[in-house]
Amino acid sequence: MGGRFSQPLVSDIYTTNEDEMIGHWRSGAPVTHRRRAHHLTPYDIGMMKNVQSLNFTVRDNLLLRESLEKTTRLSHLQKTFGKWLICLFIGVFVGLIAYILKLSVDKLQGFKFAMVQNFITSDEPAYAFLTFVGINSFYCLLAVLMVIVVGPLASSSGIPEVKGYLNGVKVPSSLGFRPLFGKIVSLIMSYSSGLFIGPEGPMIHIGSAIGAAVSQFRSSTINFYPKIFLQYQNDRDKRDFISVGAASGISAAFGAPIGGVLFSIEEASSFWSRQLTWRTFFCCMIATFTTNFLLQGVGSSPDIHDSGLLTFGFSRLYLYRYSELLCFCGLGIIGGLLGAAFVFFNIHLNKWRRDFIKSNSLIKLIEVMVVIVITSIVCFYSSSLFNCRYQSQIVVEPSVCEDQTNAEMVQFFCPPGMYSEMASLLFTNPDQALRRLYSRTNNIFTLPALVVFTLFYFALSIMSSGLWVAGGLFVPMMMVGAGFGRFIGQLVGLYFNGIDASIYALVGSAAMMAGYCRMTISLVVIMVELTEGTQYLVPIILAVMIAKWVGDFFNESVYEHLMELKHIPFLQSLPPHSKATKKITEVMNRQVVTVPELCTVRALLSTLEGNYHHAYPVTCSLESDNNEYELMFGGARKRAPYRGLVLRNDILVLLKLRIFYRGTSSELLLDTNFGHDRFIQETSKKPPKLNELDLDESDHERIVDLRPYMNSSALTIHDTFSYSEAYKLFRTMGLRHLTVIDVSNFVVGIITRKDLL
Amino acid sequence: MGGRFSQPLVSDIYTTNEDEMIGHWRSGAPVTHRRRAHHLTPYDIGMMKNVQSLNFTVRDNLLLRESLEKTTRLSHLQKTFGKWLICLFIGVFVGLIAYILKLSVDKLQGFKFAMVQNFITSDEPAYAFLTFVGINSFYCLLAVLMVIVVGPLASSSGIPEVKGYLNGVKVPSSLGFRPLFGKIVSLIMSYSSGLFIGPEGPMIHIGSAIGAAVSQFRSSTINFYPKIFLQYQNDRDKRDFISVGAASGISAAFGAPIGGVLFSIEEASSFWSRQLTWRTFFCCMIATFTTNFLLQGVGSSPDIHDSGLLTFGFSRLYLYRYSELLCFCGLGIIGGLLGAAFVFFNIHLNKWRRDFIKSNSLIKLIEVMVVIVITSIVCFYSSSLFNCRYQSQIVVEPSVCEDQTNAEMVQFFCPPGMYSEMASLLFTNPDQALRRLYSRTNNIFTLPALVVFTLFYFALSIMSSGLWVAGGLFVPMMMVGAGFGRFIGQLVGLYFNGIDASIYALVGSAAMMAGYCRMTISLVVIMVELTEGTQYLVPIILAVMIAKWVGDFFNESVYEHLMELKHIPFLQSLPPHSKATKKITEVMNRQVVTVPELCTVRALLSTLEGNYHHAYPVTCSLESDNNEYELMFGGARKRAPYRGLVLRNDILVLLKLRIFYRGTSSELLLDTNFGHDRFIQETSKKPPKLNELDLDESDHERIVDLRPYMNSSALTIHDTFSYSEAYKLFRTMGLRHLTVIDVSNFVVGIITRKDLL
Repeated sequence: MGGRFSQPLVSDIYTTNEDEMIGHWRSGAPVTHRRRAHHLTPYDIGMMKNVQSLNFTVRDNLLLRESLEKTTRLSHLQKTFGKWLICLFIGVFVGLIAYILKLSVDKLQGFKFAMVQNFITSDEPAYAFLTFVGINSFYCLLAVLMVIVVGPLASSSGIPEVKGYLNGVKVPSSLGFRPLFGKIVSLIMSYSSGLFIGPEGPMIHIGSAIGAAVSQFRSSTINFYPKIFLQYQNDRDKRDFISVGAASGISAAFGAPIGGVLFSIEEASSFWSRQLTWRTFFCCMIATFTTNFLLQGVGSSPDIHDSGLLTFGFSRLYLYRYSELLCFCGLGIIGGLLGAAFVFFNIHLNKWRRDFIKSNSLIKLIEVMVVIVITSIVCFYSSSLFNCRYQSQIVVEPSVCEDQTNAEMVQFFCPPGMYSEMASLLFTNPDQALRRLYSRTNNIFTLPALVVFTLFYFALSIMSSGLWVAGGLFVPMMMVGAGFGRFIGQLVGLYFNGIDASIYALVGSAAMMAGYCRMTISLVVIMVELTEGTQYLVPIILAVMIAKWVGDFFNESVYEHLMELKHIPFLQSLPPHSKATKKITEVMNRQVVTVPELCTVRALLSTLEGNYHHAYPVTCSLESDNNEYELMFGGARKRAPYRGLVLRNDILVLLKLRIFYRGTSSELLLDTNFGHDRFIQETSKKPPKLNELDLDESDHERIVDLRPYMNSSALTIHDTFSYSEAYKLFRTMGLRHLTVIDVSNFVVGIITRKDLL
Repeated sequence: MGGRFSQPLVSDIYTTNEDEMIGHWRSGAPVTHRRRAHHLTPYDIGMMKNVQSLNFTVRDNLLLRESLEKTTRLSHLQKTFGKWLICLFIGVFVGLIAYILKLSVDKLQGFKFAMVQNFITSDEPAYAFLTFVGINSFYCLLAVLMVIVVGPLASSSGIPEVKGYLNGVKVPSSLGFRPLFGKIVSLIMSYSSGLFIGPEGPMIHIGSAIGAAVSQFRSSTINFYPKIFLQYQNDRDKRDFISVGAASGISAAFGAPIGGVLFSIEEASSFWSRQLTWRTFFCCMIATFTTNFLLQGVGSSPDIHDSGLLTFGFSRLYLYRYSELLCFCGLGIIGGLLGAAFVFFNIHLNKWRRDFIKSNSLIKLIEVMVVIVITSIVCFYSSSLFNCRYQSQIVVEPSVCEDQTNAEMVQFFCPPGMYSEMASLLFTNPDQALRRLYSRTNNIFTLPALVVFTLFYFALSIMSSGLWVAGGLFVPMMMVGAGFGRFIGQLVGLYFNGIDASIYALVGSAAMMAGYCRMTISLVVIMVELTEGTQYLVPIILAVMIAKWVGDFFNESVYEHLMELKHIPFLQSLPPHSKATKKITEVMNRQVVTVPELCTVRALLSTLEGNYHHAYPVTCSLESDNNEYELMFGGARKRAPYRGLVLRNDILVLLKLRIFYRGTSSELLLDTNFGHDRFIQETSKKPPKLNELDLDESDHERIVDLRPYMNSSALTIHDTFSYSEAYKLFRTMGLRHLTVIDVSNFVVGIITRKDLL
């Protein structure tokens, strides 16, 4: 067997010379592509092979079955109730953090604009600009420093990591306390700094981190392992709570409980169940409610109202004609094209960042500073491109059933009674700008202003996304979409009358978002909940579907490509067509190492030292007819029929606790004082190192009986399987290891995530 | 092997003496229960065992792999495009039928009320009543006759059948043209007749039937099998199109595209995928749009508006306080209790109907007639219980941003300028009644009237649901909920001011619906889309969640219980706790029959004659070392290692087409003129009978090679599996057969749906 170990393992093959690999890879496949057409480069595959997977399957061994005999209906109820309770806490925490976020951002931005306004009123443009740039840069500086301190996982949106985790990929330290804290602070600073980013994406990551933290409450440093949470401390339950957290994060950010659930179902999660739907729904409600309560409930007004972020004027008069549906289709196409373009440029930029800036903190810092300065200049001076306009020109429609306070414009350097278009869009916080773009009054903005605004925003958001600060894409994309949407609307309005440009802005936003992230139903629901009107459902749906189709024609959603850039081995729900004709024997890893049911400590140790596999198929030590099991100790026999699967960590725990076999013949003896609870508790801790085990020579001859601890319900497939069917099984059941057996039930190979890529 | 056949097969064990069984069963478990606590009675299990399952798995044989080598990217695109196209057609048809439904119901009801109104204006109560009863009874008569002609599957809602089908249960002839047509007509007549039923439930069934019809377009009678649809003619694709159809049905009925999708995800479907989400979403949009277009687009008004069934007045003044959330929780509890009570009474009534009325058409007819007469009496004379009230008392709030035309009340026999409360609720069509219950004006109804109305409606809808007419439960439950909701609201309004009873009515409806069908998110979305206001999201969500919890404490949703009454072997997403400790060897069916890879026609025929299994594990005819396959012809060898799975129908097709083995040694020879397309085409037809095969004595010695046609990727599990894990695998992968192998890869048993119940 030693010979088998000496061979290099697949998981170590590619981690050689990175630069050379990158060189190879630059000449390789395109960065953005359509899934079907794409093939991963050796470098990507190599990087992905180093990523570990999660155990979503139940370790169904004799201990578990023994404990199941004892479990009562009460304990089931307790476990279920506990899940609901945890969801409640997740919701409250996420809502609280969303509130803190919004509050502090308001304060910081308010401070900024107040300072600048002083100089504006005293008509000192130079000072005003300097203060503006200064404060923005300072905010950004803090944001970057936080990322540099905490680590890159606090930067950008974190959605790819969450998606990867929910798909079964263990992204190291992506959901700990440090990234959580770092992301919150970095997000507050970067969003306040006026960078063209949004708070929603990071909120998803924050929500997931909270979900993980609340459900997995423990600490290996102070060796604190609460009994209550023990039953939830497996990858499967953790995954579910993270789904819940992600959903509640977006719910709290948008004030859209249903949209949050749908986002988790459609985009974030790879595994879903009805029970999860209900819990997620409950958690999202709690999160949204908490935020709203804190934002508007306290004192201010007795009446509350589950407000969306921005409320769309509700009107019976401002409707659309069937003929306008054509224009909305047009918006969908534009949204799809712009979305695809955004993905293309942004991904290429990020690839360049990854390959050349690498993780050089200083350059990262400088990059952010450059971007924020450019952004500030654009926001400040773009208004000078256009003349001031008279406030009195704005005619607020009486028919609209919504107080049009949001139509108040920014005066900036204009004379009294006049306002500056660009400043109203750029020299303000994004919510205000969006309100103005969605406003019912058609004659606020001129066409050129809208075009310039859209272009600036589009270009700068491409640069901003992927910087070393926390930030998402929803708000910027909504801005761009609202910009060109309103432009188209007003353009159409020149030729036909009775056109309401605000609807076009709304539809444009939806189309643009669908164009870059390729979501459909969740996006529609979010837009509806955001704007509190279901009356424009058909236009929105139409535009979203078309934008998605158009975008998909060119490339994947930005998250898919980011996951690829970050080397997250994500398994799509369906096997790639390019491998449809493969057999499983062509992809499986033949370097599988098996251990016999009854095995000497020496053999186990040599097995564990010889490789770093995370699971070992367990083979039969006994001929069914004659008890020659003495022979099989240490797996002396080359091949034996498959019996089950045992995890590396479990073997380590058994050795650490010295759970040796006390029998002489082959009968099964269960260790009475080592039950299921103890087993789970021990295995949920950090696994011991091989060299930490204190086993002397005499122990090496002892025998370990794996039968009570191995997974007897581990799935196997025959070597006659096709790649596609094996893929479906692996992906649908959320497996980590899939043993391949031959016609005589001998183990011939094993399949892990990396083999299916 | 013959000996094995002579034993009785599990699938025929229980179909002996029904009445005796019922006798046994009456003394058995309760009818309504909580899932965990329940155990099926032998009679139920017996009845369920006779139901067949569907094949959701891919038949992955050599022919398929061969054809995959040929398939191009283009053909993939074509297939995908075809699916979208089919969804488009489904949407249009469903929308069309929903339009026809609403139109004809309006006409029929209009005619009815016009006739009666004549007598009312000429103040002839007797004639008025007689006309009312007469027309109602006549409508009902037609509805029942249609059911009697077409068959019971045209009656009630059909949701249990659809749920069962989507879970993998083949409910005979539930989705054909006859039940489709019958259901449509019966629904039109019964809904117009004023029975306390709703049109939404049947629309789901109608949508599913259309989904099946459009995607599976073919006819075995005129032997018409279009090539285009061939690739979609498998149970898996059919299932997806049925999910789409069900969703579009409810979307069109409610004018709620998103609610429809969510209903399919949360309640109807057991298997779901992202791709399906998108197609369903698209189809629901088309269906809703088609209905709206036909209803309001044509001519009438140039401006359109994606109206929900009833529009809730939108207002900034009418909001709720945090303190009111307590009342909404109370509504949730009441809704849950009433919902559970409804399930209890309705299920017991239906059980009684099933056991004693059986399918005696005459009694069924009489029953319907009795119910409609009672309903008519209640609707007509209940108004005399209360005094008329002055129309002038109604104060329409100016602040409400919705024209309150729906507050116009019914005069009935009242003097001019006055109106009758009960008549405004009962002597009108349900939509109007709901509008009045949701109306913003608080002083329309008096408390006693609301109580009486709620009680009447509750009692009568219990009786009405399950009659031999098509009809659903959504609208009646909304009525009841709105009734007690408004009552509570006005009651609270007596003690606190600023209470808006309409919100309570809305929340009450949601709670009541959640209480009987236990849906959550889809319900909330439907209510929101229906009433076009997202501003009451939190109260609705709160009430729905609480109602669901309260209801679940007492029993299951009405659909679960109905499925049990109808003996549909539905597999829940999780294995029952009661069997958590079982091993797979305790439940598996050991009477499995295997066939060797190379088998004589005689042996095959005797196998097919000897039993009615739908699949046979294929065993190896060849020792890996020496070619003694001559021996194994006809499966002379008792046990051989497992190789694959072959379907009974496929064997029959092979025999019918005389696909015999032409080789001499054991090498694999593919029949060139019998490719995958031909194979699919033949197997998708109605399978030939055994006695229809024209095989003479000489053929009996011929050899059939099953290797190219058996499923080489059929899943197997080892006999070490636990019941729970096997259940999860079976349910998650949507299997029909799961072969159990032992340590030496010999077949020891097979698991089908009936074994897991």
